[in-house]
Amino acid sequence: MPQRKFKEMVRTYGFDEVALVPGDITINPDQTDISFALGNLTFSIPILASAMDAVVNPLFAIKFSKLGGLAVLNLEGIQTRYENSDEIIAEIAQTPDAKLTPLLQKIYSQPIKEKLISERVGAIKQAGAICAASVTPAGTKRLAPIASDAGVDVLVVQSTITTARHVSKSYRGLILPELCRTISSPIIVGNCCSYSAALELMQTGIDAILVGVGPGAACTTREVIGVGVPQVTATIECAAARERHLKETGKYVSVITDGGIRTGGDLCKAFAAGADAVMLGSPLAQAIEAPGKGYHWGMSHSHPALPRGTRIKVGTIAPLEQILFGPTSVTGGTQNLLGALRTSMGVCGARSIKKMHDVKMIIAPSIKTEGKYFQATQSIP
Amino acid sequence: MPQRKFKEMVRTYGFDEVALVPGDITINPDQTDISFALGNLTFSIPILASAMDAVVNPLFAIKFSKLGGLAVLNLEGIQTRYENSDEIIAEIAQTPDAKLTPLLQKIYSQPIKEKLISERVGAIKQAGAICAASVTPAGTKRLAPIASDAGVDVLVVQSTITTARHVSKSYRGLILPELCRTISSPIIVGNCCSYSAALELMQTGIDAILVGVGPGAACTTREVIGVGVPQVTATIECAAARERHLKETGKYVSVITDGGIRTGGDLCKAFAAGADAVMLGSPLAQAIEAPGKGYHWGMSHSHPALPRGTRIKVGTIAPLEQILFGPTSVTGGTQNLLGALRTSMGVCGARSIKKMHDVKMIIAPSIKTEGKYFQATQSIP
Amino acid sequence: MPQRKFKEMVRTYGFDEVALVPGDITINPDQTDISFALGNLTFSIPILASAMDAVVNPLFAIKFSKLGGLAVLNLEGIQTRYENSDEIIAEIAQTPDAKLTPLLQKIYSQPIKEKLISERVGAIKQAGAICAASVTPAGTKRLAPIASDAGVDVLVVQSTITTARHVSKSYRGLILPELCRTISSPIIVGNCCSYSAALELMQTGIDAILVGVGPGAACTTREVIGVGVPQVTATIECAAARERHLKETGKYVSVITDGGIRTGGDLCKAFAAGADAVMLGSPLAQAIEAPGKGYHWGMSHSHPALPRGTRIKVGTIAPLEQILFGPTSVTGGTQNLLGALRTSMGVCGARSIKKMHDVKMIIAPSIKTEGKYFQATQSIP
Amino acid sequence: MPQRKFKEMVRTYGFDEVALVPGDITINPDQTDISFALGNLTFSIPILASAMDAVVNPLFAIKFSKLGGLAVLNLEGIQTRYENSDEIIAEIAQTPDAKLTPLLQKIYSQPIKEKLISERVGAIKQAGAICAASVTPAGTKRLAPIASDAGVDVLVVQSTITTARHVSKSYRGLILPELCRTISSPIIVGNCCSYSAALELMQTGIDAILVGVGPGAACTTREVIGVGVPQVTATIECAAARERHLKETGKYVSVITDGGIRTGGDLCKAFAAGADAVMLGSPLAQAIEAPGKGYHWGMSHSHPALPRGTRIKVGTIAPLEQILFGPTSVTGGTQNLLGALRTSMGVCGARSIKKMHDVKMIIAPSIKTEGKYFQATQSIP
Repeated sequence: MPQRKFKEMVRTYGFDEVALVPGDITINPDQTDISFALGNLTFSIPILASAMDAVVNPLFAIKFSKLGGLAVLNLEGIQTRYENSDEIIAEIAQTPDAKLTPLLQKIYSQPIKEKLISERVGAIKQAGAICAASVTPAGTKRLAPIASDAGVDVLVVQSTITTARHVSKSYRGLILPELCRTISSPIIVGNCCSYSAALELMQTGIDAILVGVGPGAACTTREVIGVGVPQVTATIECAAARERHLKETGKYVSVITDGGIRTGGDLCKAFAAGADAVMLGSPLAQAIEAPGKGYHWGMSHSHPALPRGTRIKVGTIAPLEQILFGPTSVTGGTQNLLGALRTSMGVCGARSIKKMHDVKMIIAPSIKTEGKYFQATQSIP
Repeated sequence: MPQRKFKEMVRTYGFDEVALVPGDITINPDQTDISFALGNLTFSIPILASAMDAVVNPLFAIKFSKLGGLAVLNLEGIQTRYENSDEIIAEIAQTPDAKLTPLLQKIYSQPIKEKLISERVGAIKQAGAICAASVTPAGTKRLAPIASDAGVDVLVVQSTITTARHVSKSYRGLILPELCRTISSPIIVGNCCSYSAALELMQTGIDAILVGVGPGAACTTREVIGVGVPQVTATIECAAARERHLKETGKYVSVITDGGIRTGGDLCKAFAAGADAVMLGSPLAQAIEAPGKGYHWGMSHSHPALPRGTRIKVGTIAPLEQILFGPTSVTGGTQNLLGALRTSMGVCGARSIKKMHDVKMIIAPSIKTEGKYFQATQSIP
Repeated sequence: MPQRKFKEMVRTYGFDEVALVPGDITINPDQTDISFALGNLTFSIPILASAMDAVVNPLFAIKFSKLGGLAVLNLEGIQTRYENSDEIIAEIAQTPDAKLTPLLQKIYSQPIKEKLISERVGAIKQAGAICAASVTPAGTKRLAPIASDAGVDVLVVQSTITTARHVSKSYRGLILPELCRTISSPIIVGNCCSYSAALELMQTGIDAILVGVGPGAACTTREVIGVGVPQVTATIECAAARERHLKETGKYVSVITDGGIRTGGDLCKAFAAGADAVMLGSPLAQAIEAPGKGYHWGMSHSHPALPRGTRIKVGTIAPLEQILFGPTSVTGGTQNLLGALRTSMGVCGARSIKKMHDVKMIIAPSIKTEGKYFQATQSIP
Repeated sequence: MPQRKFKEMVRTYGFDEVALVPGDITINPDQTDISFALGNLTFSIPILASAMDAVVNPLFAIKFSKLGGLAVLNLEGIQTRYENSDEIIAEIAQTPDAKLTPLLQKIYSQPIKEKLISERVGAIKQAGAICAASVTPAGTKRLAPIASDAGVDVLVVQSTITTARHVSKSYRGLILPELCRTISSPIIVGNCCSYSAALELMQTGIDAILVGVGPGAACTTREVIGVGVPQVTATIECAAARERHLKETGKYVSVITDGGIRTGGDLCKAFAAGADAVMLGSPLAQAIEAPGKGYHWGMSHSHPALPRGTRIKVGTIAPLEQILFGPTSVTGGTQNLLGALRTSMGVCGARSIKKMHDVKMIIAPSIKTEGKYFQATQSIP
């Protein structure tokens, strides 16, 4: 059948479909370097916390910064719409599933209070933490200067899909090169998921891109509008764009894989696919310190006309420090994420994140052997 | 193993196996054009309602036309066999599964009343709506003139599989070029699912083809007779035939993907695969206005000797207008189908349906992450 | 990774992974020819009934012959070991799962009574039916002459895997060319599943081969010894061997797909893959006339040291005639198998079984859409 | 999409995805040779018992040796940390899931007693059995001489992943060529899973490698650190390395597939993939003689900071001899493993394990037909 005449399709891959091949050399985990550089800033761990209301509030951001990572505060979320953000979040956690979406639609339709932006950012800065904050492309013009004045260290411009070019009648699209000229702090933009779109974003002068459309646990983008690229392929694509941009310009724009990472295994694969850092939502929403109290919901869930995503009960499993660094007695890969990363780098023979980019990756079906043959067996008394 | 010596097979794809890649440019959804042209007619939305008794009766057809789409009335179904069609449909809805197929076999064995054709079509036309009506190839000779006289605006000739050439001893097969000469209104013919069969149909002079064999939710064609082509590949094939036919003749024959579309995501993928319009069954059977009252069954279910298909309880979820245009608080993709289409076109950078045909499509496994890791976690009290 | 250095593997396919593409021409089902020729014999339907004790006893064989097919009586099963075969089979049906395998091992360890061979075959012949009977390769030397004397019309030499060459110290292997010289009736040999093994068998002078290792519903060959070829690929391979043998010798050796066929869809795919006939077990075990009374078990289940297979409760669903020819009110593909075949041939444009070999087959994932999106929806009261 | 620019990935395969093709010649199972040679030693069966505390204690090792195989005693497990090893293992078996990992972490943190090494090895040797014992790479320098002095016949150096080169600051890595010069008994090293890593290990002068990272039933390596290679591909890779090493040096280094084998079918596939022997854990933990009393857990489960794996209830199904040699009335492939191997070799026409390496292997989806269509059928009363 001549189907390729009209449309050529390539196979893409998600975390569950790939695995890493151990190296010919192994390295002690304590000899590995997992730091992440962004502009002038260096972080001791290559993890960003998602700009989601269930994950990051000022207290969480302070704690996460002290542990070496970078938490992103959502400047268009509950923290900047409500003085009593804790109460609002508690209300979300307590609302039954059937009534949740209308409630979220209502909560997120309240206006953003500029005063709260300064207050929330100020609280983080006062504690001596590095502060990152996110705005949408449409909100950037108004909110970015306020954030900058409040002392934000890293600006994140984020929507489900952000491109270097946007066509609109109702407002003049965000011009990223202009933003880069006016804001001195590092700028992260996203999300994107293809080679060409990533390359165009990099060419605007930004410092990092967020990779990931449709792969997250709290996301139904693909079900609702058919759009999405599995996260391993998306990261490989964007990393390829980074290499080309580096060769052409000499500038290294970091690739941050955002969404779809649930275990240490997924995290290790993201780095092997080419990520410089990862942005985590669900795994951090499980921390005792997370504001969501065991629940998690996505940015598109409150869309007034076309809501996407679901609230997930992730549970509260451990303190943030234990989720990141262990030790743990849990064997499923949800705790000691950085211990897992160092161990993986060790067996793959990668001394640094950049060396991890060279690790061999294979296409391998997900393993679900447990109990397959043994559950039905009988014990002899 | 030399298996290819005897038979070459290519891999084909369904909606669950593909996804769309966002564009390098994005467009505001309100800047997209989703209209659909058929002959002299133009519809503001590219959706046809299936010629199924659970979906379209005259009242539904009127409402659907006012909302911008084209509903197809089945001229060989319950509406033209029974004066009291509502009662018959109510009986089907109330019959338990075990007794359903024999009941359907009996109901659909009653004769078609020509008088009812005129009445049903007349009711639709009197309300100022555009009226489309379907006949089978075997019934075309007798029923098409009656439908035409009654004022049908669009004639649909439909069976499970319709080809330009049919071999039969018992009756002289339908000659499509003859039909095209005698009927002045646009003619849609189907279903088909391959490049070559679509091309032959287009060469008969018809205006649109219906694409889809074996993919629908209420269909067991593939289980019973082994025949079927997954809908994405089928649409790509037939779109390729359209392009070739256009190049050879200058005539644009529309491709209408029929069957297997259950969510906004599926719908968006159909257009990206090359569809000019889609025909929906189950998604519209869920409307409050649908005659099936929450149930849905297919055309082959009543075959006297070899019934295929099942009755599906789709439920009644919302008014037709909300299913088509939202707004909604449902996140699974079954409501605000056209909002989903416009959003998808926006993120894919497609200003029109034809531009949507150029969107990159990838082979990507279906995502079922929800609850996978989180359901079993425990909350700390 | 250089894995191909050591071992090259090709992808193979089973019934659930393929589908048929409708033709560019369609044919009325009543214009199709589904007859099957074997030596001088011609059968009006291309179906053999498996040499399994749950499927074929003399009464079933007579009925099946009258309906146009060919039932194979197992000469090394219960019918030839027990006068009171009905009682033995009833005992199997009533034994709980946990005690079944030891019982089967015991039952099948009783000696074969030569007298019963003559009696069982005689009963079939006296009724005017065509009689086929099966022996194992090891039993052929002793039992084939007895069967021949008793009037068997078709001899089947069958074991899980039969090759033209067999190495053994304990007995002189069966020499098929010798057998072909001594037995005048058509000889069917199997099972095999590869191009080369099928070709070697054909070169011995036999009339048909049985294709299928490890695909049957009551079979665990692959789980126990790792061996098996999915049935679509196996049939394609053996059909390719048939074509080569025909070209080289002018002799047409029939390919009979045996095992793994559960529905009309599977059956149609077997023919499109190249089968001249199919051998059915489970689908016929569901007939009221089947001796198994709703149960079904395989030939290897009674192996004294390494039993393979399971007893399956297939249920008793309809008279044999209805399973073969309908009409039916069941939509899942288990009844009116020949109506399904004719319909499939019709939509694929195949006038005969040989033309069915030319039908396009695609690789397509199994469709399981039913209830996927609709089960959880709520009805508006 | 230019994803291959950055990273090329190949498809890999596990046991469930492949099957063996019968040969063109068949051999009586009793004519097959399944012996396994390692250095000067020859074993009548090609099976090693895993160095796991639930599988091998001295009594088990003695019994297993008498049956012709080679059991490996873990010198860094419970047997060498506790005098009362039976009580400790009983405690593990009785501890509920929720408390298990902390308990294992505690149990395995106790010091190894050198005296117990001599005692345990001595007990095995005194019974006239061949004794194999395992140490980790880090423990080799200290424990290997003790084991050697105690009379160990085969030394196994094993960790999750072992390479010929290891980078560490805290201790001087194990130098395998040195070890080979000082230890006269055969040395087995592992685990590894790629062509290049296997080749480097072989070049150090060892006698056999263990193949398998991440495939075992009690293993979550892949979930936690993303690392693993499906076992069929891993075996093929390492077998290719063996062939190259043989060609270059004339030395045959045995390939032992370790992990992921649960049934006779898996075992047969391992040999066809190139294994000279297999190492079994779960299948032997099901023996009455196994110390785990129906439970099974892996080596990494007790890691103090990043535990991996789960305890599996495998059940106790039969005496060791029956699991290995049958006869059996179980049809699922978990008993009579060597009967299964001989039968598989017979139908594949392989007289020896080395001939088994030449058997054709195909990519074939796992078959799960049982009950698929029949469970829901109704019996006619």
